[in-house]
Amino acid sequence: MTPNDESYCPLVHAAIELVGRRWVGVILIAVEGGAERFSDIRDAVPGLSDRLLAQRLRELEDEAIIDRAGGGRDVRYSVTDKGLALFPVFNAIASFVQEWVVGNESACATTKTVEALKPV
Amino acid sequence: MTPNDESYCPLVHAAIELVGRRWVGVILIAVEGGAERFSDIRDAVPGLSDRLLAQRLRELEDEAIIDRAGGGRDVRYSVTDKGLALFPVFNAIASFVQEWVVGNESACATTKTVEALKPV
Repeated sequence: MTPNDESYCPLVHAAIELVGRRWVGVILIAVEGGAERFSDIRDAVPGLSDRLLAQRLRELEDEAIIDRAGGGRDVRYSVTDKGLALFPVFNAIASFVQEWVVGNESACATTKTVEALKPV
Repeated sequence: MTPNDESYCPLVHAAIELVGRRWVGVILIAVEGGAERFSDIRDAVPGLSDRLLAQRLRELEDEAIIDRAGGGRDVRYSVTDKGLALFPVFNAIASFVQEWVVGNESACATTKTVEALKPV
């Protein structure tokens, strides 16, 4: 585990951490599914606090995963092309979980939502 | 973030953590690439200690991601069907990193290796 070993790719690791950061997947799925405004996204993701949603939106905007347009009371969010490029990762994880971790009948809501968005 | 909210799927999270656990990807790629014996895998993954390789192999065997056959001095490992089902996740992450995080010319060795294994 030397810092310069070639088998460990910090960029891949960073991407895995981005994908795995809590709520990132469901937020992106909600926005891509049509939830443009802060309140729409919050309503689409039960259990997510305003504080944490605001934090994640800032992070995702900083990483160019989502775009913010407008201002004042009419701020709207959208998933960027870079953000859309993450959906195959969510899909692959959801497929793995569907096929190998749970039976088809007991899959989580998230898994089903991602599956429904499959053709990206 | 109530424990019973529906938008957070612990099974998906567990799968993300499995994929993101350090060295898991490179170990699976080495084994699937033909490194069957402990020493072959170690040689294929520079920088990975014997201790950590042994630990990961145990974990992956416990999770039915790899199989161990034989015994004594002739133990051989192989990737199970469940393990192969993780490769689309590695591929999707590698593609994302290739396209959006690094330029094509500076991609990590890991990314290239995964890309090379793409048709799974």
